Amino acid sequence: MKKIDNFKSIADKYEIIFFDAFGVIKTYAGLVPGIEKTFEYLAKEGKEYYIVTNDASRSPKQLAESYHRMGLKAITPERIVSSGMLTKEFLDLKVPDGIVAYLGTPDSAHYIERSGLQTLPISEVNEHNIDKISVMIFLDDEGFDWFRDLNKTVNLLRRKPIPVIVANTDRAYPLTASNVSIAIGGIAAMIESVVGKQFIRFGKPDSQMFMFTYDLIRESRQVGKHEIVMVGDTLNTDILGGNKFGLDTVLVLTGNTQAKDYENRIISAGIMPTYICDSAVVDLSGLNL
Amino acid sequence: MKKIDNFKSIADKYEIIFFDAFGVIKTYAGLVPGIEKTFEYLAKEGKEYYIVTNDASRSPKQLAESYHRMGLKAITPERIVSSGMLTKEFLDLKVPDGIVAYLGTPDSAHYIERSGLQTLPISEVNEHNIDKISVMIFLDDEGFDWFRDLNKTVNLLRRKPIPVIVANTDRAYPLTASNVSIAIGGIAAMIESVVGKQFIRFGKPDSQMFMFTYDLIRESRQVGKHEIVMVGDTLNTDILGGNKFGLDTVLVLTGNTQAKDYENRIISAGIMPTYICDSAVVDLSGLNL
Amino acid sequence: MKKIDNFKSIADKYEIIFFDAFGVIKTYAGLVPGIEKTFEYLAKEGKEYYIVTNDASRSPKQLAESYHRMGLKAITPERIVSSGMLTKEFLDLKVPDGIVAYLGTPDSAHYIERSGLQTLPISEVNEHNIDKISVMIFLDDEGFDWFRDLNKTVNLLRRKPIPVIVANTDRAYPLTASNVSIAIGGIAAMIESVVGKQFIRFGKPDSQMFMFTYDLIRESRQVGKHEIVMVGDTLNTDILGGNKFGLDTVLVLTGNTQAKDYENRIISAGIMPTYICDSAVVDLSGLNL
Amino acid sequence: MKKIDNFKSIADKYEIIFFDAFGVIKTYAGLVPGIEKTFEYLAKEGKEYYIVTNDASRSPKQLAESYHRMGLKAITPERIVSSGMLTKEFLDLKVPDGIVAYLGTPDSAHYIERSGLQTLPISEVNEHNIDKISVMIFLDDEGFDWFRDLNKTVNLLRRKPIPVIVANTDRAYPLTASNVSIAIGGIAAMIESVVGKQFIRFGKPDSQMFMFTYDLIRESRQVGKHEIVMVGDTLNTDILGGNKFGLDTVLVLTGNTQAKDYENRIISAGIMPTYICDSAVVDLSGLNL
Repeated sequence: MKKIDNFKSIADKYEIIFFDAFGVIKTYAGLVPGIEKTFEYLAKEGKEYYIVTNDASRSPKQLAESYHRMGLKAITPERIVSSGMLTKEFLDLKVPDGIVAYLGTPDSAHYIERSGLQTLPISEVNEHNIDKISVMIFLDDEGFDWFRDLNKTVNLLRRKPIPVIVANTDRAYPLTASNVSIAIGGIAAMIESVVGKQFIRFGKPDSQMFMFTYDLIRESRQVGKHEIVMVGDTLNTDILGGNKFGLDTVLVLTGNTQAKDYENRIISAGIMPTYICDSAVVDLSGLNL
Repeated sequence: MKKIDNFKSIADKYEIIFFDAFGVIKTYAGLVPGIEKTFEYLAKEGKEYYIVTNDASRSPKQLAESYHRMGLKAITPERIVSSGMLTKEFLDLKVPDGIVAYLGTPDSAHYIERSGLQTLPISEVNEHNIDKISVMIFLDDEGFDWFRDLNKTVNLLRRKPIPVIVANTDRAYPLTASNVSIAIGGIAAMIESVVGKQFIRFGKPDSQMFMFTYDLIRESRQVGKHEIVMVGDTLNTDILGGNKFGLDTVLVLTGNTQAKDYENRIISAGIMPTYICDSAVVDLSGLNL
Repeated sequence: MKKIDNFKSIADKYEIIFFDAFGVIKTYAGLVPGIEKTFEYLAKEGKEYYIVTNDASRSPKQLAESYHRMGLKAITPERIVSSGMLTKEFLDLKVPDGIVAYLGTPDSAHYIERSGLQTLPISEVNEHNIDKISVMIFLDDEGFDWFRDLNKTVNLLRRKPIPVIVANTDRAYPLTASNVSIAIGGIAAMIESVVGKQFIRFGKPDSQMFMFTYDLIRESRQVGKHEIVMVGDTLNTDILGGNKFGLDTVLVLTGNTQAKDYENRIISAGIMPTYICDSAVVDLSGLNL
Repeated sequence: MKKIDNFKSIADKYEIIFFDAFGVIKTYAGLVPGIEKTFEYLAKEGKEYYIVTNDASRSPKQLAESYHRMGLKAITPERIVSSGMLTKEFLDLKVPDGIVAYLGTPDSAHYIERSGLQTLPISEVNEHNIDKISVMIFLDDEGFDWFRDLNKTVNLLRRKPIPVIVANTDRAYPLTASNVSIAIGGIAAMIESVVGKQFIRFGKPDSQMFMFTYDLIRESRQVGKHEIVMVGDTLNTDILGGNKFGLDTVLVLTGNTQAKDYENRIISAGIMPTYICDSAVVDLSGLNL
């Protein structure tokens, strides 16, 4: 575990870099200042990179557009791997037909639709369509009436033995510098404990996220796990998950874990990143180029 | 563990009987048929009884009135011990002044008000009054906007280190024969896991409920724990809590635990009632009186 | 929450003081230096005090003797309330006869014996006596072969549906300045998760410990909860439990919670003591007496 | 979810079959009767198969030999994927040098040794070698003194911030028809809760086990997840994990889940296999071949 001054020396050491999104590339206030230099450097050096994010609220295309609007053009849809994509793969492999009942916005549901599979917000489940429901998905914390639709979800799951997918494992996400929002993962954990059934969760630290990205890369080239580094701001998702999958890991201090107490938190959690770096910004200012 | 045919033989054996409310005296459909005969018999025999209930949504007076409306006059406010009463005792002992922020209906909050202590729904917390908040209480699952107010609660608790009370430990409660509602105890557990702090919980199976009732009785008479029996329909609240407090316990099959699988559930939970009885109804029909 | 310089001002304010044992009166190295002055002062002022301890390894008489050997004569058996005493009360009320199977030392078992109730170490359970076993108790982490007897316990509990008591809720206890030992509460939690049954636990923070002591006092005098203060070194047992029972609480910094980080730990746990004091030592040195 | 009479119709439908070991191929009493016919059929039909097992107590070679001794020659080391192999991959990728402290038998440790990496039983950790320890692994429940070495492990992990690997997620394993043993996964969970750190776990239901096997196959051929079926006896490891990875799944009734209550258990756990089959035995008796 080494403290590294300039992210450049990490970028130089690996062929492929996985970045967490929130707390690494962007924060509640917009892009992490200077982060565009990192992606310029990676492009120049011919390094590959992916955004690996617990976000099932939108499609990769919509996620990429949100970076573009902030001025970061380097992040294209092909560069994004989200927990929503794992959810979609699950449906493709395991749910041939029927209705997908969901909690979330229409945007989040639109992405998982495909021929043969209709999506239906929990609010529209009724006696006429309940028999066709083949799976239930927790997609986003917005887009529904919590009181009415969470109670309706509990009773649907008590009545019908169907698989349940949680498309985002996070319990909360940052909203402003000081405020957070309860995430769909936190809501799903409550419903799981009320109905007493075991749900299927997609998202870091689970290694399926890393494997999905790893497989994506290997469709076009040979690569080993030792050539990849995972960059994240959260010990118990990015770093724990990256370590377990066999990747080297970098803890950056621009998000959930802060400069003032990162050492205490590493020791008290027992989760050790390979490197620690103030940010994921590549600094070329001190170099004669 | 004996199966008893007629609740009368249990009533005859003890001086004082504690009844759970839901699933024992009433169900979603109204009173348990014949339960009024039990209270007539107890009155005739001079036995004391208490309703010991995880319900902080209303005052004992309001709870008693709801029994009266169903036709059961025997249950007076003095006969009711609720988790709301423990919450009130906590405030009286530990919170001398300030504002009590709460989630619940105005009815639930009204009960805990007293001179020097103002109650304020979470929705009305703002920059002007936040500094005066001295405690936060989860009272009822109704009376607030779940999305707006649960998120507001999370951020209040992240910002202010105040004690948090959960006035009802239940995670769900029955609404109809087949449907349940998420209870305030389930909501509080979600918030607790999101903010990572430890809340104070009042309600069965915690022994403080039983102790409160026991103390109430001993204000007017001497009594030993062996003279009291706890009657309930739920193994992991009524029976576990009663056993732990040192009371004999009766599992009745009119609520959460059903005739078809009570034996399996007793063995799989490892929670043993002293007796099992179909219901808490005293049957005098076979007797020459 | 006020920082108090001298424990004397707390002692002066209450009629009755509850002390945790380990980390308050003694540590791995012996008595807390100067603690005898506290008990001299309490005696002089006519204050009542109790040691309220999660310790089921020995009887109150044996526990008192261990204080005497360290030179503290003020602690007599009548002043000690242990989780072992709650276990004994449970047996007296709920287990009329049969064999009590246990994990622990013969000393720990001797204390709970009484006419009609035989104790038997798990190692001696066999086909001839298994049918007479009416309860199983986790008493102490010593006195048995962990590998052989923990596996034997698992299979006993899978086979026989009997109540199971955990006589000490602690998961670990301090052994030296830097080392701890796994406590019987930690072992019991493992067995509970392996067999999937719910055990009955006695010990702080559960309020039954405080109630037992409170009842003991009220056998000889009238007293209110506001006249009692609980002194402890551990937020999530002594302070959480004392608060919940309605007592004022003092966090001392001679044990589990240290001067360097007590503020962070209070805020991160959300458990607020009424007072904080460096130690429970009454300092009379600055006074003209 | 369909009940299938003859495992043959499942074998006919997939290119590759993953089998759990215990409860599917063997039980405490030896091989599942007739299971050799399944492997004869798979060989004849040119189907590929793997044993995917939460067992880190021995190397694949030793595991294969134990099948050979029971008379099943079809299972060669190359056919076995164990949680011990994931542990070994983790060490290869993430632990360049130093000492691996472990709990387990010498056999379990021997397998993970390699140049540059010394293994050391916890019992032999001392002041001279403690600084060189770079990781700690829970390998097997045998081979050490539980009392002495579990306490020593707790204090090692409190003192040194190193990654901790649990090489088997199971909490118990069957020993005889009626008895189980506490598994190293159960022991590790106790230690994890005592030291308050987060360990890394390898084994079903975690998808890394399935991915490891999937990757192994793809080294020599192209294959899709829809061509693979996972056969297991345990809902919350084999079936949950297989489903989540995107495989079709078969619940067999020769192990943990029994014919008398599999329907209840499926509904109460909310984990749905694609098929249910009495056993994994291919029955050719009714066919004219």
